[in-house]
Amino acid sequence: MIKVVLIGCGNVAKHLFGVFWEHKAIEIIQIVGRNEKALKNLDTTISSTTDFSDLKEADIYIIAVSDDAIASVSKQLTTKKGLIVHTSGSISISALSDHRRSGVFYPLQTFSEGHKVDFENVPFCLEATNETDLGVLKKLAGHISEKVFEVSSEQRKNLHLAAVFVNNFTNHLYQIGNTICKANNLSFDILNPLIKETVNKIEKISPFDAQTGPARRNDIQTINSHLEQLKDSNEKEIYSILSRSIQKTYGKKL
Amino acid sequence: MIKVVLIGCGNVAKHLFGVFWEHKAIEIIQIVGRNEKALKNLDTTISSTTDFSDLKEADIYIIAVSDDAIASVSKQLTTKKGLIVHTSGSISISALSDHRRSGVFYPLQTFSEGHKVDFENVPFCLEATNETDLGVLKKLAGHISEKVFEVSSEQRKNLHLAAVFVNNFTNHLYQIGNTICKANNLSFDILNPLIKETVNKIEKISPFDAQTGPARRNDIQTINSHLEQLKDSNEKEIYSILSRSIQKTYGKKL
Repeated sequence: MIKVVLIGCGNVAKHLFGVFWEHKAIEIIQIVGRNEKALKNLDTTISSTTDFSDLKEADIYIIAVSDDAIASVSKQLTTKKGLIVHTSGSISISALSDHRRSGVFYPLQTFSEGHKVDFENVPFCLEATNETDLGVLKKLAGHISEKVFEVSSEQRKNLHLAAVFVNNFTNHLYQIGNTICKANNLSFDILNPLIKETVNKIEKISPFDAQTGPARRNDIQTINSHLEQLKDSNEKEIYSILSRSIQKTYGKKL
Repeated sequence: MIKVVLIGCGNVAKHLFGVFWEHKAIEIIQIVGRNEKALKNLDTTISSTTDFSDLKEADIYIIAVSDDAIASVSKQLTTKKGLIVHTSGSISISALSDHRRSGVFYPLQTFSEGHKVDFENVPFCLEATNETDLGVLKKLAGHISEKVFEVSSEQRKNLHLAAVFVNNFTNHLYQIGNTICKANNLSFDILNPLIKETVNKIEKISPFDAQTGPARRNDIQTINSHLEQLKDSNEKEIYSILSRSIQKTYGKKL
């Protein structure tokens, strides 16, 4: 049984709580957070506290808080003998260097409230200052996911950056698509097969080879007509810059 | 049996050829294109020609050529009695106004060479100048797809624009993600579960509610650190503009 203290009340903490809770080999012995109400919402049978001086002894302390708060939470844990890890994609392991035993337990997935995630397919990117602790993290991640990777702080930082492009920015483009549909009495669902096909395609051919569209064809007439259609200056700017970037990519390489 | 003459040798023409060919209720009686070699590659048992004066009589003539070439192809078909349609997302039905019977047969999907498309799920956006011809197009589309919609030229133009955002631009963001992974000895596959989850999520919650990431949280520290990480000026610009757009979207509405 791996004894875990989970620190945080946000989306990552909640989702980890949910999946740890289901697994027999993992015991959440305490949940810690500033938001008393959020803590109570999780589960009343597990000990929870807002007071760091109250912390129990555990095998692993998982700091699942916002990036900005990691340093201050870390300072509260200096007396603990267990392994201290954070769950951030962009913060180096060195942010926890006050501790003899530290690591990173980064689930490369997007977590939203009210949407359950299939953890078996979530890649866990792990790092630790020694091989034994890396083994502990591999065991913990292996209980809940089939995709466990050892990733350095430098690689993770870049992976997180790539994730912003393929997830956060992509979602924003979906939102713009949704706005255009709504303004024209069209259901956004009509775009769903296209969105899915775009994703299925890149499992078989590289995104470089999968690129289609007016910018790829250098079809200036359609590009200009689209720019005229767009009234929102923000959307216009995004259209221009992404089209130009596609044109540059293929102009250079073809 | 619906008799079809298919005009074009590009991706859309090739994919339509493939799916029409499989269906008993559709007979491709001729394929027409400028590229003699591409025509021969399709199928030698079907009559093909590069000469528009040689055209057979058909129920429907499908002009599946690039947007720029639609007008000149249309001019070659003025003596034909059949229904003349194009397959473009962005060109109005009025581009075919020389013909007594005209329409649009727009498959809202991305077509790449060497990647077979499941037509049953491709939304077909149809338009015609009269109800009878609309019925003919609905019958043709209904043979190959379960998703058939009547969409006006104005709606279709906007749908095509939305499709550029959710498909072409999204794919370009995947390509940037791939580039970052490669530069850091990481397999792009590690991002695949995240990419899929981003898509699955918007089937259940709106893209507006699904938005996560540093820009959504207004996490300036991470945004600045990402901008420092990016060396390519193009990628830097895309990162800045999309982050700013997300910040604007949520700054305004929250």
